[in-house]
Amino acid sequence: MAYKKVDKDDIAYLIGISAKNRVFFGQDIKEDYSHDEMPFYGKFIPEAVIEIADAKEAAAVMRYAYEHDIPVTPRGAGTGLCGGSVAVCGGIVMSMTGMNRILEIDENNLTVTVEPGVLLSDLKNTLAARGLMYPPDPGEKGASIGGNAMTNAGGMRALKYGVTRDYVRGMEIVLPDGNIVEAGGKTAKNSSGYSLKDIFVGSEGTLGIVTKLILKIIPAPDHFVSLLIPFGDTDSCISAVPDILKYKTVPTAVEFMQREVIEAAEKFLGRKFPHSASEAYLLLLYDGNSADELEKTYMDAAQICIDKGAEDALVADTPKKLEEIWGIRDVFLEAIKSSAAEMDECDVVVPVSGLAVFIKYINELRNIYQLRILCFGHAGDGNIHVYVCRDNLSDQSWKEKCGSVMNGLYGKSAELSGQVSGEHGIGHAKMQYLKGTSQESCIQLMRSIKAAFDPKNILNPGKIF
Amino acid sequence: MAYKKVDKDDIAYLIGISAKNRVFFGQDIKEDYSHDEMPFYGKFIPEAVIEIADAKEAAAVMRYAYEHDIPVTPRGAGTGLCGGSVAVCGGIVMSMTGMNRILEIDENNLTVTVEPGVLLSDLKNTLAARGLMYPPDPGEKGASIGGNAMTNAGGMRALKYGVTRDYVRGMEIVLPDGNIVEAGGKTAKNSSGYSLKDIFVGSEGTLGIVTKLILKIIPAPDHFVSLLIPFGDTDSCISAVPDILKYKTVPTAVEFMQREVIEAAEKFLGRKFPHSASEAYLLLLYDGNSADELEKTYMDAAQICIDKGAEDALVADTPKKLEEIWGIRDVFLEAIKSSAAEMDECDVVVPVSGLAVFIKYINELRNIYQLRILCFGHAGDGNIHVYVCRDNLSDQSWKEKCGSVMNGLYGKSAELSGQVSGEHGIGHAKMQYLKGTSQESCIQLMRSIKAAFDPKNILNPGKIF
Repeated sequence: MAYKKVDKDDIAYLIGISAKNRVFFGQDIKEDYSHDEMPFYGKFIPEAVIEIADAKEAAAVMRYAYEHDIPVTPRGAGTGLCGGSVAVCGGIVMSMTGMNRILEIDENNLTVTVEPGVLLSDLKNTLAARGLMYPPDPGEKGASIGGNAMTNAGGMRALKYGVTRDYVRGMEIVLPDGNIVEAGGKTAKNSSGYSLKDIFVGSEGTLGIVTKLILKIIPAPDHFVSLLIPFGDTDSCISAVPDILKYKTVPTAVEFMQREVIEAAEKFLGRKFPHSASEAYLLLLYDGNSADELEKTYMDAAQICIDKGAEDALVADTPKKLEEIWGIRDVFLEAIKSSAAEMDECDVVVPVSGLAVFIKYINELRNIYQLRILCFGHAGDGNIHVYVCRDNLSDQSWKEKCGSVMNGLYGKSAELSGQVSGEHGIGHAKMQYLKGTSQESCIQLMRSIKAAFDPKNILNPGKIF
Repeated sequence: MAYKKVDKDDIAYLIGISAKNRVFFGQDIKEDYSHDEMPFYGKFIPEAVIEIADAKEAAAVMRYAYEHDIPVTPRGAGTGLCGGSVAVCGGIVMSMTGMNRILEIDENNLTVTVEPGVLLSDLKNTLAARGLMYPPDPGEKGASIGGNAMTNAGGMRALKYGVTRDYVRGMEIVLPDGNIVEAGGKTAKNSSGYSLKDIFVGSEGTLGIVTKLILKIIPAPDHFVSLLIPFGDTDSCISAVPDILKYKTVPTAVEFMQREVIEAAEKFLGRKFPHSASEAYLLLLYDGNSADELEKTYMDAAQICIDKGAEDALVADTPKKLEEIWGIRDVFLEAIKSSAAEMDECDVVVPVSGLAVFIKYINELRNIYQLRILCFGHAGDGNIHVYVCRDNLSDQSWKEKCGSVMNGLYGKSAELSGQVSGEHGIGHAKMQYLKGTSQESCIQLMRSIKAAFDPKNILNPGKIF
């Protein structure tokens, strides 16, 4: 469809319903708004940017845009990895970062009510001060909670605690036509008609704009212990994972990392990881309320790994030792990014039983294309992040090789009954792979849901399908 | 819309795609198919019943029905409580109970793949024999897993483990037009477009017919301990709940029960409950892998309750003692049913902080209307089941009083920011309350989703909205 271009009357309207210093157009639009963390997927400069102050403003913008056929792309902290918050069809970018208040911590219902622009790190610190925890823990702590909900972000602790979806109890949503709805609420359960909140979670801002979230929180565990487990080869490393999961106590996290990624992170941070001489590592995290109980659990897990060929099992049970490991784990993405001239990323998730085959295949691709391909991630969930790095390649050679590797990765994942994205979403960058590996009927259902919510296709168009 | 009536040509077609002994019509249709566990909400005799053998058959029926405008109502074990599986618009009832095979237990991915007609009790026993557990635990163990998914059933253990939605990873679904889609799969996470499986879960068979489910399972815990905690009055009983939840270790279950319900169950089963002299009880369940750890936890929980005025705390830590308590808990619904000439039911869920007010209000209604109103349920989730009993009332008096009580209950729940159903669903019996307490925009969104999936409104019409 042909969208209306934003003109000076539109700008005047936007200023009228908000404030002059929160509306940007033309040269005043910061370059940052043209991309997320992956400028590699293209830069798209919006026609206007509005920094939203409240739901009423967001509703007014949507009513206006709906009436005038102007596309609107909601945007959080811009830390996405698939271009989901980028205005590929032009129009207005609606920045939610100013709506960053923690509105209520309700200790009786164990919920926190927040605006969408609240950063994960702020939420974490505020809750920790009260002995509380919001379990989802994506690597990027500068992400906004609205963006986390819109991509159904996962993170390290998903294995034990689940993903963002499992912690969103209620949402206030501005619909494409400007109506405001409440989906869910503070209740722990809900079987009252279709779960609208579950349709919005993971919808990447294409069905509505989230202006408030009610999140489930838990009392923070008292004790955390990590095991860093070096293996001589990747195969035996990955083959230990199902055994760890079958053992009685579910670990909070089971992360996989290779020496090359650790070295990149050491270089990036200018400090040493406690161990980096081995080929491949598992990093286990356990949490709980009793040191004795945890000790039995992690000793058993260490033994399972030793039986699978692990070279050692280093225990980190103090805040300092935990930080030495996790501080480095948290910068893997940034470290790889800074090590390469350019990079592409793949976030497939496969059944855990297929992970060994998938990682072996990555090694084959590395050999075939002679590319630096790094990978790390959530082994316990079968969700490994793969980074293809451009080092000294010509434009054409990089484009060809990278494309072949990506096709290979998504193809292999589909063969293993995997999914295109475990936690980053589809955005516009992964659309071809979702289409290429999904049943046409499923894509058609998604399209019909989109049409039901947004018949004029003005909200974040050009995404997912 | 005007549906086509089932005639002998349609019956011939149904027999042609299945088998003569699995298609029923006219006098051959069992009375059971005209209602679920609540015949109180009306009996609707379908025009035909087909007992489905596989997805292909279900698809053939739907293609035919779609083409000929015949309504189809899928039905599991018929243990629903809101008429969700009853053919209120006539047409064909599609019974899924014959599709009752456990297809695969995948210990490496910790999933079980089942047909929808598998009963909870069979699933539980089969998994237990392998040291595995499917955590959701609705009271009705004779329910089918397909029905559980379609109502997003909760149950006792939802507090610690979550509800059915949290355990459905993948579904095979026959769409209203007969297309078969796969939503989700064996992967632990998924951010690949709209979560179709989360739209189907809780949709009460109005968007598609589930013909296969992939469920997450866990290694079964080794130790279970229950605490039965008597209180002299309901107020102090309920006021202990938030304190129990805020304590570090989340209980597996926090059930509330009143003396009257226990007495009804004792009478029903002909055996005594370990304690029934007090006004109100909390029944706590903890599970874990270490007896020592559990002991510390339940001792602390008992102390919290004593501080809130509990009269005692009885520990049940052997299979026999656990069965003495939970065996009676499991028959509460049946016991109440058998104690009353007729009854109506309410399954609202309120934020836990509002539970005390809600239960106090139930007592007020009891006094105002001089009706026997019994309640019990999942106090830890704010999800209490309320049963209004007809004893010796005239038709008119019962109808009036029961209606007033129900209006009062749903009104009070809405006032407390509750939801119409915590786990039983809406069916046709609770439609008026969903409509009465929901935003019009939300109902409109649900309608538009229904139209997107089922434009001819032939799949389980007359339900939810």
